[in-house]
Amino acid sequence: MDNMLAFLTLCGSVIALLFAVSRANMVLKFPEGTSTMKKISASIRAGAMAYLKRQYRILLVFFGGMFVVLVIMAAAGYLTWFVPFAFITGGFFSGLSGFVGMNIATRANARTASACQEGLNKGLKVAFSAGSVMGFTVVGLGLLDISIWYLLLKLVFGLPIEEITSAMLTFGMGASSMALFARVGGGIYTKAADVGADLVGKVEAGIPEDDPRNPAVIADNVGDNVGDVAGMGADLYESYVGSILSACALGVIAFNKIADVDRVSAVAVPMALAALGVLASIIGSLLVKTGESTDQMTLLKALRRGTNTSAVLIAVAAFPLVWFIFGKNYIGFYFAILAGLLAGVLIGFFTEYFTSDTYRPTQNLAEKSQTGSATIIIGGISLGMLSTALPILIIAVCVMVAYTFSGGFVETTRGLYGIALAAVGMLSTLGITLATDAYGPIADNAGGIAEMAGMDPQVRKRTDALDSLGNTTAATGKGFAIGSAALTALALIASYVEKIQQVGGSSVQLDMSVMNPTVLVGIFIGACLPFVFAALTMDSVGRAAQSIVVEVRRQFKQIKGLMEGKAEADYESCVDICTKASLHEMIMPTILAIVTPIVVGLLLGYNGVIGMLAGSTSTGFLMAVFMSNAGGAWDNAKKYIEGGKFGGKGSDSHKAAVVGDTVGDPFKDTSGPSINILIKLLSMVSIVFAALVVNFHLF
Amino acid sequence: MDNMLAFLTLCGSVIALLFAVSRANMVLKFPEGTSTMKKISASIRAGAMAYLKRQYRILLVFFGGMFVVLVIMAAAGYLTWFVPFAFITGGFFSGLSGFVGMNIATRANARTASACQEGLNKGLKVAFSAGSVMGFTVVGLGLLDISIWYLLLKLVFGLPIEEITSAMLTFGMGASSMALFARVGGGIYTKAADVGADLVGKVEAGIPEDDPRNPAVIADNVGDNVGDVAGMGADLYESYVGSILSACALGVIAFNKIADVDRVSAVAVPMALAALGVLASIIGSLLVKTGESTDQMTLLKALRRGTNTSAVLIAVAAFPLVWFIFGKNYIGFYFAILAGLLAGVLIGFFTEYFTSDTYRPTQNLAEKSQTGSATIIIGGISLGMLSTALPILIIAVCVMVAYTFSGGFVETTRGLYGIALAAVGMLSTLGITLATDAYGPIADNAGGIAEMAGMDPQVRKRTDALDSLGNTTAATGKGFAIGSAALTALALIASYVEKIQQVGGSSVQLDMSVMNPTVLVGIFIGACLPFVFAALTMDSVGRAAQSIVVEVRRQFKQIKGLMEGKAEADYESCVDICTKASLHEMIMPTILAIVTPIVVGLLLGYNGVIGMLAGSTSTGFLMAVFMSNAGGAWDNAKKYIEGGKFGGKGSDSHKAAVVGDTVGDPFKDTSGPSINILIKLLSMVSIVFAALVVNFHLF
Repeated sequence: MDNMLAFLTLCGSVIALLFAVSRANMVLKFPEGTSTMKKISASIRAGAMAYLKRQYRILLVFFGGMFVVLVIMAAAGYLTWFVPFAFITGGFFSGLSGFVGMNIATRANARTASACQEGLNKGLKVAFSAGSVMGFTVVGLGLLDISIWYLLLKLVFGLPIEEITSAMLTFGMGASSMALFARVGGGIYTKAADVGADLVGKVEAGIPEDDPRNPAVIADNVGDNVGDVAGMGADLYESYVGSILSACALGVIAFNKIADVDRVSAVAVPMALAALGVLASIIGSLLVKTGESTDQMTLLKALRRGTNTSAVLIAVAAFPLVWFIFGKNYIGFYFAILAGLLAGVLIGFFTEYFTSDTYRPTQNLAEKSQTGSATIIIGGISLGMLSTALPILIIAVCVMVAYTFSGGFVETTRGLYGIALAAVGMLSTLGITLATDAYGPIADNAGGIAEMAGMDPQVRKRTDALDSLGNTTAATGKGFAIGSAALTALALIASYVEKIQQVGGSSVQLDMSVMNPTVLVGIFIGACLPFVFAALTMDSVGRAAQSIVVEVRRQFKQIKGLMEGKAEADYESCVDICTKASLHEMIMPTILAIVTPIVVGLLLGYNGVIGMLAGSTSTGFLMAVFMSNAGGAWDNAKKYIEGGKFGGKGSDSHKAAVVGDTVGDPFKDTSGPSINILIKLLSMVSIVFAALVVNFHLF
Repeated sequence: MDNMLAFLTLCGSVIALLFAVSRANMVLKFPEGTSTMKKISASIRAGAMAYLKRQYRILLVFFGGMFVVLVIMAAAGYLTWFVPFAFITGGFFSGLSGFVGMNIATRANARTASACQEGLNKGLKVAFSAGSVMGFTVVGLGLLDISIWYLLLKLVFGLPIEEITSAMLTFGMGASSMALFARVGGGIYTKAADVGADLVGKVEAGIPEDDPRNPAVIADNVGDNVGDVAGMGADLYESYVGSILSACALGVIAFNKIADVDRVSAVAVPMALAALGVLASIIGSLLVKTGESTDQMTLLKALRRGTNTSAVLIAVAAFPLVWFIFGKNYIGFYFAILAGLLAGVLIGFFTEYFTSDTYRPTQNLAEKSQTGSATIIIGGISLGMLSTALPILIIAVCVMVAYTFSGGFVETTRGLYGIALAAVGMLSTLGITLATDAYGPIADNAGGIAEMAGMDPQVRKRTDALDSLGNTTAATGKGFAIGSAALTALALIASYVEKIQQVGGSSVQLDMSVMNPTVLVGIFIGACLPFVFAALTMDSVGRAAQSIVVEVRRQFKQIKGLMEGKAEADYESCVDICTKASLHEMIMPTILAIVTPIVVGLLLGYNGVIGMLAGSTSTGFLMAVFMSNAGGAWDNAKKYIEGGKFGGKGSDSHKAAVVGDTVGDPFKDTSGPSINILIKLLSMVSIVFAALVVNFHLF
């Protein structure tokens, strides 16, 4: 069964990638529209590619440096020789996922605008297909990386299963580092361009959004691609792969202690579940179709049909899978998977509840704009903080259910494996959930192109309908991303504990009690990290936006005839400034994430690291939910007012809501989503440097 | 030595109370000024008393209900019969501290204004003396409660020492409940009145602050007294008593395991340290004098001379104290005390660094107002979040030093006792630190009276100088409050663990490992509580302010001649609305704090509760620092601009800064300080309901 399983996963990977290719071909068959549209799209693509190229150059230095560090550690006997290479491939595939997604997105934007000329359904088809390319590329590359390494370590090097899963886990660190760079860099880029363009263009010069006279308009559209597409792709690649790898690693350990089941089964379940998820996602995404109504509910139903079908399919298919592989004695693992799937759906729903303007919370928030910007800011912060309660409870119940049903109270590691399986369950339909998430920025870009190219207002109306729906589905997608990050992080802490025992042997004195002061101090420091990280990334956005403001003001002043539409703005200089600023700013937060676990480990020892990971996971989850939801609610409160409520566009209420939205921008698109990656990267780094910490620590 | 010790503490208490009385007499000897001033002061006093009276009526119901619950639990054998009574006295003395402080504050406000006519030094003398009344009342009543109970349980009931300290610990729950009510209720009151008065008066009607035509102006001044004085008094009573009691309880347990020292010594040290602190504080406060310069640095030096002298005195005196009581083998405890004292000073300094406009962070924040309210909001949030890092590290180092030097790695309970002693050390000079904290709102009130009574502008200038200095010293005071809350909360978790073992005996299966899912889920839930609590209290301020806005608008419209100064505003209705709204709003958050630990205990068991306490302490500390510092920085950034920077008063920068200040108001005066109490109340409730949870729990 052993090798067959890896080949099966490889098949799943190939199917996903083939499906992505077929979707990409479908997108590319559509016409790009007029020469103006082509030109705009080309500038956006060029800007995005220029950014990625420079980002990869910086990352080459980082990955090169880390490679050397890991090689030295391997030479010193603190790591196996596979780790440096696994690290590199993890980073490479994570980056590739973002690159492919962005490539298709920048080719689909003009095509979506063009298709929207013919009708809404056509527009949805192009945008959603392009989103699917991204979704299935992430899934396909993830499974490819996993199955190739598995086969390599198994067939070529002949390693025993526990060493395979342990070595594979470390390529998660590569993926996480890459994801953090991409999310932070892209997040800073997109919000700096957005805020900068708005501050001078909309507020000072009084020209509409996406107006071609605004020098930062191309940078703004580039930002959607490098942040919301490339960043998200790398991010979810990391989540997906991380959840599967941590489940495999824990499964092998759990079943080492249970004699009656082969340990390979423990690896088989998460991998096969992921492969099944590919099929379920493909079936679901084929069902996404809509009529010509721009009504939100009709559109939403079209997408929901796809995601819900996939979720039901995988919920059904997981039962025989677990039964077949583990036998009926361990059918409890099925309920762990189901709990994860359900928790993802529920967190997604409550994210939507708190951030969509079809529900009371955001409507109430919009109402607060009537007494000015201070009240809407307080209201949004309070809404975001309050909205953490339900997701926390859902995760709490999910953890308890997964742990208990998996038999954790009989044998701890089984319970931990169950928690990891819950995360895999939650992410198993990533192909389609990511597609519904990624098509939003494409529709957004299409709208920008429609505006800049001066297309029929009907087109903009259709792209707006798609974009607005994208905000709702993005909320659901965020729910999955955050929920799975928390579960995966918990599984990774468990993997760290096992790693410590493995490398330290009998010299290890584990005392993970909350009353152990090193653990306690670790919890304090860990809990502080998301706060510091959020602060650093918010500051970065502010600084980068400031440099855009200065440049746009300069162009308005120095380029004669720009405001009259007689001269063209120098778009490239804004793109260039954004690129430089965001790449410069992404370094510090990422370094913090990598250095802290090592320093904490050297000072407080592994017990302190375990405390740190528990602290950062719990507070990180809260901060991510808080910031994403507050930001989402402000955004939609503004849109709600623009829809004619409380005075509508241009009223004082609207002005107050714009302040809220601007504050929310770095919350929801830079700091919030990056924290998801942060909490996993901290664990990954801890795992890789475990041997170092076991050998050298102060306390 | 045994009884002598308690009498010594009683002596300390009496000295503190006598000193408070002497200071009160000094204050009352000053004249109250003109009849207008007397009238205004009387209205403020009447409003404040009316609030307190109604608050106490509600609390009577609450305390009555809790008393019945505790009696039932005692009858069921889950508590000793002392607990219900201890609970009541804790609440009573905490409330009394606030009442006395507020009483003298409302009598000192007009006197301070009047004294400022004669000179700055006179004004400082009155305000600081009134602040000292509060400081020494809190300390005196705290020691009184402790020594009376100790003597009662010892001499009358003849309980063994470990039962005495264990029973006494539970009166902390009464103090904490009272403190939370007072802080939340007072905090909502003061900010609702402040925000409400500003929104309509300053922004809509365009009349200056403290203008007698504003119907909410008396409510605003009442708010300073019920929130910043009565609320703070109850709060710090709770901190002070909580730190001493948890040290006593842990000390007895620690020395139970060490044969060569009498257990009574362990109780003696924190009590004697507190008594010595009274003397050190008195000496320090006698040194507070200034000349006639209104220069901030001269004034600050005058206050610093007092606080620094007290700190040095206690640092010196603690050494022979520990040597004499414990002997040189346990001199390590002295370093625990010293670590606490130093940590308090350092946290205070960094609080000031991040929030005072004499340093870069707040100056940079003020600069951000130039690009609008959104940027200053983002900047403030980021400043607040970033400012958590140093306090966390200071607490981390303090915990490790206290634990290690106390011999925690030899015997755990000794280390935990050391952490508790650090908290006592930090709060030992509370008499004077609280005096420097409490005089601020008195000067603030004096300024309001000067304005309303139309006094010489020179007077207002002097009260402003005092008030502004008060903001700086309040920052230091907050540092002590937050730092000691974290240490005390840690000591209380340790006390809870001991309590569980004590009531459960051999049936208890403690597994406090972070990898135990009940602990982990507990950490998640606990970490979420400060977020939810902050959200609830911020919402409350918003709702209460809204009702004030409506009332002020109504009066402006319906009372003819009000704006021309021909008719008088109906101040009482605003006072009444604030009172009702804030008392109504304080209930939910407090119930949450009391019910959650019980529910978590019944569901997840004591291990879950321990996780919850660790989670709430770490995240609560962070949230308290974040919210207090962000709020303080916004406040001072606004003042910095009002001082003429970036366009000065009335400029666009100033308007943006006002938005920041308004957002910061509930941050720093309602939610932030309440979280300090929340984290201790959670532990206190857990301790009192320990036996219930040991007997009934799902997991």
